[in-house]
Amino acid sequence: MSFTVIGRSTLAFTLCPSVTSFAAIVGKMEGEGPYGKCFDRVEQDAYFGQKTWEAAESSMFKEAVTTAIEKGKFRTGDISFLASGDLLNQCTATGYAARKLAIPYLGLYGACSTMAESLLVASLLISGGAKRGVAATSSHFCSSERQFRFPLEYGSQRPPTSQWTVTGSGAVVLEDKGKGPFITHATIGKVIDAGITDANNMGAAMAPAFCDTLTRHLTALKRKPSDYDLIVSGDLGHLGKKVASDLLKQEYHVNIDEVYTDCGCMIFDNTKQDVHSGGSGCGCSASMLAGYILPEMKKGKLTRVLFIATGALMSPTMSCQGESIPSVAHAIEFNVQSH
Amino acid sequence: MSFTVIGRSTLAFTLCPSVTSFAAIVGKMEGEGPYGKCFDRVEQDAYFGQKTWEAAESSMFKEAVTTAIEKGKFRTGDISFLASGDLLNQCTATGYAARKLAIPYLGLYGACSTMAESLLVASLLISGGAKRGVAATSSHFCSSERQFRFPLEYGSQRPPTSQWTVTGSGAVVLEDKGKGPFITHATIGKVIDAGITDANNMGAAMAPAFCDTLTRHLTALKRKPSDYDLIVSGDLGHLGKKVASDLLKQEYHVNIDEVYTDCGCMIFDNTKQDVHSGGSGCGCSASMLAGYILPEMKKGKLTRVLFIATGALMSPTMSCQGESIPSVAHAIEFNVQSH
Repeated sequence: MSFTVIGRSTLAFTLCPSVTSFAAIVGKMEGEGPYGKCFDRVEQDAYFGQKTWEAAESSMFKEAVTTAIEKGKFRTGDISFLASGDLLNQCTATGYAARKLAIPYLGLYGACSTMAESLLVASLLISGGAKRGVAATSSHFCSSERQFRFPLEYGSQRPPTSQWTVTGSGAVVLEDKGKGPFITHATIGKVIDAGITDANNMGAAMAPAFCDTLTRHLTALKRKPSDYDLIVSGDLGHLGKKVASDLLKQEYHVNIDEVYTDCGCMIFDNTKQDVHSGGSGCGCSASMLAGYILPEMKKGKLTRVLFIATGALMSPTMSCQGESIPSVAHAIEFNVQSH
Repeated sequence: MSFTVIGRSTLAFTLCPSVTSFAAIVGKMEGEGPYGKCFDRVEQDAYFGQKTWEAAESSMFKEAVTTAIEKGKFRTGDISFLASGDLLNQCTATGYAARKLAIPYLGLYGACSTMAESLLVASLLISGGAKRGVAATSSHFCSSERQFRFPLEYGSQRPPTSQWTVTGSGAVVLEDKGKGPFITHATIGKVIDAGITDANNMGAAMAPAFCDTLTRHLTALKRKPSDYDLIVSGDLGHLGKKVASDLLKQEYHVNIDEVYTDCGCMIFDNTKQDVHSGGSGCGCSASMLAGYILPEMKKGKLTRVLFIATGALMSPTMSCQGESIPSVAHAIEFNVQSH
């Protein structure tokens, strides 16, 4: 037994995986945001030196993983596994990077929730008996826009509810021993569909999944919001964050406002950057986690953090068929102490 | 510790997950193949009563999962998690089914290797402390053809090296206790790229990944091929199976021919069915596993089976960009006894 299951799907780890090192690589616009100085590297070239946006994303992802490994003073040969995914069809950003890394690879798909899912799967491996592994994800504005919406060249208008896919990648090295921060608990999310059909309003579509996972996590562990220094959602954006906050009060009688923020609201300054409802993409929560949250925990400025990455599981095909947007959110609880 | 890591990424489970029940739902053509009578249901309607092929696949997947749960005499509320994936962009066949099932959900992407990956992730959860979960995948000929190749209405010619995507879904219920068969070991695959660029020759592209994972698994556990009743690859097809067999002899000095078969070679009768190099798709290995291999183990006709599902991780976008095809293979060792 490497964990205890509490409630239906909340895991309390017996051996808590320790975060050894981490890295975040982002694009120019993310570098110009309020957390620009936090990231390991800000690349000015949207192509990351490659010929296509898909290759650019893959290159950025590979750099995040290798930087995290190097910061831990390891070589890729020291890593037992890579648990990762991205937004591209067939998860090619990570799959193509993985062939160059030659690390045993588990491909994951949870849309923008993938950073929490990758940490969860990596934690199962570390708590179960593996020594060292990497959890990582990426997204790229240009590869996402043309895949999910329209070619950039069309210059499409974006509605105010839309979010801006973050060009960024975050990677975290986990080990079976270390000084932390530790992953102490996790909750596997259920797929929730509130009936939203507007693919330009993903914050509203994902908020109910966030609320479900958060409240199940709190109930299972008998915690209240004030037990955390920070509860951070993946990327609900400004509108989705408001929906989540209201929904929690009205439906669940839980108020998290004192400790609540959202990676999609943090990464850009929407008074200066034209991103409408904020950032999104699985690189958003990944780069905020590896660039800001985990460093703050290492410095002792944050003690206990609940990281809940949220994902909208629709595809353009399903949206064209008139389907609504199912969403999922997985929770990862970090603590500077292992218990 | 719920497992021991041997070599770089071979897991020997301490508590071996037990296979409680399983189900396979397939399409008409699979029902007309040599194993047609093995499947729980053969659906004559390619639309599975739905309006689109994507919805058809999702419906088939949902039926496989619920049938496996019902055969185990459980309700969906008794299941702690669903670990699954499919070939559709953004894994919508499984994601959309998961919202109706309301089971905590981990989405996976390993192309046609996903059935082994789902069993691997499910085993991490069961061996670690979860009570009961489901591993499942699906694929559908019609949804895959139009996504990966051409709309069916074009009536495109297919080269002899191409494989026929299986319309099928397989689901397996795993528990922390039971009478078996048990999952005793697993090896996480590395991404291997042999430089094949022809997306109509995926057997050749995937064979090197199969050989790498197989030989790493055998070496780690000090096993020889004759230790198994059956070594079965996911879906290399007729050409890929020959490539794998030859490559093992020439490069690794291992001969597995006495115990080796391939789900892609089994599911169709290529003397009567026009499928060129055989079956493919993650529903291929899933339905052969749940429809034939696990039932044979339950009957005591097979004792120790090494199931290695193989996946080609390319996307149409990456192929159009001239990229070669990275592949991955994960190994799952089944045994009627737990040790």
